[in-house]
Amino acid sequence: MSTCLVAQSGGPTAVINASLAGVIRANQLNPLYDRVLGGIHGIEGVLADQLYDLTDLSEHDLELLRQTPSSALGTCRYKLKRDDEADFRRLADVMDAHDIETMFYIGGNDSMDTVDALAEWAAENAPSKRFIGIPKTVDNDLVPVDHCPGFPSAAKVACQITHATRLDYDAYTRPEVFVLEVMGRDAGWLAASCCITGDVDLLVLPEVAFDRDAFLAEVRAKFEATGSCYIVVSEGARYADGTYLSAGDTAHDGFAHAVLGGAAQTVKQMIVDTGIVPRGVVQDLSRAARSSNFAQSLVDVTEAYDLGMSAHMRSADPAFTGQVVGIRRNPEAAAEGRYEAELFAGPASEFANFVKRFPAEWILPNYQGITPEAVAYFRPLIEGEPKLVMKGGIPATIVPFNKR
Amino acid sequence: MSTCLVAQSGGPTAVINASLAGVIRANQLNPLYDRVLGGIHGIEGVLADQLYDLTDLSEHDLELLRQTPSSALGTCRYKLKRDDEADFRRLADVMDAHDIETMFYIGGNDSMDTVDALAEWAAENAPSKRFIGIPKTVDNDLVPVDHCPGFPSAAKVACQITHATRLDYDAYTRPEVFVLEVMGRDAGWLAASCCITGDVDLLVLPEVAFDRDAFLAEVRAKFEATGSCYIVVSEGARYADGTYLSAGDTAHDGFAHAVLGGAAQTVKQMIVDTGIVPRGVVQDLSRAARSSNFAQSLVDVTEAYDLGMSAHMRSADPAFTGQVVGIRRNPEAAAEGRYEAELFAGPASEFANFVKRFPAEWILPNYQGITPEAVAYFRPLIEGEPKLVMKGGIPATIVPFNKR
Repeated sequence: MSTCLVAQSGGPTAVINASLAGVIRANQLNPLYDRVLGGIHGIEGVLADQLYDLTDLSEHDLELLRQTPSSALGTCRYKLKRDDEADFRRLADVMDAHDIETMFYIGGNDSMDTVDALAEWAAENAPSKRFIGIPKTVDNDLVPVDHCPGFPSAAKVACQITHATRLDYDAYTRPEVFVLEVMGRDAGWLAASCCITGDVDLLVLPEVAFDRDAFLAEVRAKFEATGSCYIVVSEGARYADGTYLSAGDTAHDGFAHAVLGGAAQTVKQMIVDTGIVPRGVVQDLSRAARSSNFAQSLVDVTEAYDLGMSAHMRSADPAFTGQVVGIRRNPEAAAEGRYEAELFAGPASEFANFVKRFPAEWILPNYQGITPEAVAYFRPLIEGEPKLVMKGGIPATIVPFNKR
Repeated sequence: MSTCLVAQSGGPTAVINASLAGVIRANQLNPLYDRVLGGIHGIEGVLADQLYDLTDLSEHDLELLRQTPSSALGTCRYKLKRDDEADFRRLADVMDAHDIETMFYIGGNDSMDTVDALAEWAAENAPSKRFIGIPKTVDNDLVPVDHCPGFPSAAKVACQITHATRLDYDAYTRPEVFVLEVMGRDAGWLAASCCITGDVDLLVLPEVAFDRDAFLAEVRAKFEATGSCYIVVSEGARYADGTYLSAGDTAHDGFAHAVLGGAAQTVKQMIVDTGIVPRGVVQDLSRAARSSNFAQSLVDVTEAYDLGMSAHMRSADPAFTGQVVGIRRNPEAAAEGRYEAELFAGPASEFANFVKRFPAEWILPNYQGITPEAVAYFRPLIEGEPKLVMKGGIPATIVPFNKR
């Protein structure tokens, strides 16, 4: 009985379940496999033989799955070590026990490395087993793609909240700074996307070494010119020596000014301590941005679903392994001012273990935000809203498989 | 030339502009006044003669105004002192200069006190001038109403983010606590509303004196029973001696454990310090919840608009002053399981300077959340979504009048 396995890994997103729904639905349309099993909690649960049969999920459940944020199979942060053959053997045993021929792994850089390592190992040790990657990450930092599923919806939430909190901030006359913190440990894509609406005065990215004095001079200039300053800070913002801003303000005595609230708290505190304004407001959008389903981008949820479908369909080719499906932007359409996505497949090694930073040429100097080219890149990604099934005033969701 | 004035005060909400739109539209449908002037930054701007003519706002602009979060006229925290007659005289002079006969003030407890004070003063000193209140507050703490405009939309955002972040939290297996902080300095309505979806394990309200040991015992019990604990904390949560949790954990040495991140940070830290779990995630929903327009409740935006209309229409009666319009729940409909709002008017003094706390009989003991009666109260308020005009992937908004 031929079987495929699908699992999720890394940080949840608003559309990682849409990719899962795509794999399941593709198999209903063309049953390449007799069964579709879900691995609970990523590779960790698979190694522990925790599987859930997804083959015959109803159309209604698939519709809910598509709009359910977070990872409905549960996730893990477990990374297979390339030199730890025991895990590889154990996985092969689980796969054999369930006649699993193909494993689809939905995840970020680390998960694509897992796909690469497993495919490489299987080529020599279990040639009938195949491993295929489906990317996701709100960080948007995978190298060979135009963008990653999950990012556009997170950007849409971030933009919306930026615009709404800017309006809230602008309602007041009292002198205070507003600092919004958004996710992005190594790359500033999500923080940069907050600038789409033109609401951000100053932007602090991990890509630019933080210069305290230069930054504070810009803050002061904004207050002098307009009486206000709305700042977006990426959680991964850091000084030239690599110290994260979230660790506190290194220009101060460490203990007295130790800050537990992250990069935005540090930025607010240094502005207040410097006496530019007497107070500030900090809003941290971590979990609230990455897995909200109020603001799923239609482009994103459609593409995530299509990538799941495409991965399944391409697996009809018995030689298709160690590959990842991804999204490119059609350059001819882009030249005509239209957005069109193209799906492609490439070696997992090209997706793994690299970080695509926000491009230096899209960053304006002196924390002034992003270029029009960057805005043009972001714009089409956040377009459109799926029609959501609502229940009791909020979007309906499916009960996660790891909680059944 | 007869004129009315409308101004906004206190913290912005998602629908305070809908009430403004209601006043403007009512005057277009029945021009009781030749002009509708907006006061910029509440009473503060009115005293400084900063007014904006809203009389002929287009239907399109009114539609956008209805869906624009925050206070489109700007707001203030200025409170008129009852014994400071200079301000009263100055206001009467500004009103005289523009032939303003009626002032509509949209705001919370303090603003309703301003309405009361002005009406009382005018009765003796400027009998032709009238002052009418339209309530709003995400805190939902006005006494004579069933609920306040602004609260249902904030509750809808809070519920949605509670449900989404709970799903995100549940995707993991590692032992960590999740603590969500929501607004509510004196009353726990918004924190309590997070319990509607059944996602909250423990709830900390300002209405219940915080007992550190009892609370930590509950946290421990949840982890032992289920391996997880999702906590919602109101920003106004406090110990029996009145100390706010946001000031840190008083059971600890104050300095070494000083916490700058608010009540949720304190709660997370005490759980980690006690060794129940090694880590935790904190998400603070302050500004992001109160003025989001992705999650406007249809009930809320409709009622806020209707209150604006109603206040204007009732002002046709020359004796209508020192009054506030509010919402009651139709008890007969409620008995039949239906929700139906009734608009009424009452003396501003009854709306001012009191705080309606979340009812003790709706609070389950030992931080276990809220009763089914409380859920039944909340449920209808978050129902329905208005059809939003979108622009570039986010809800379109009007340019605030205080920024023109």
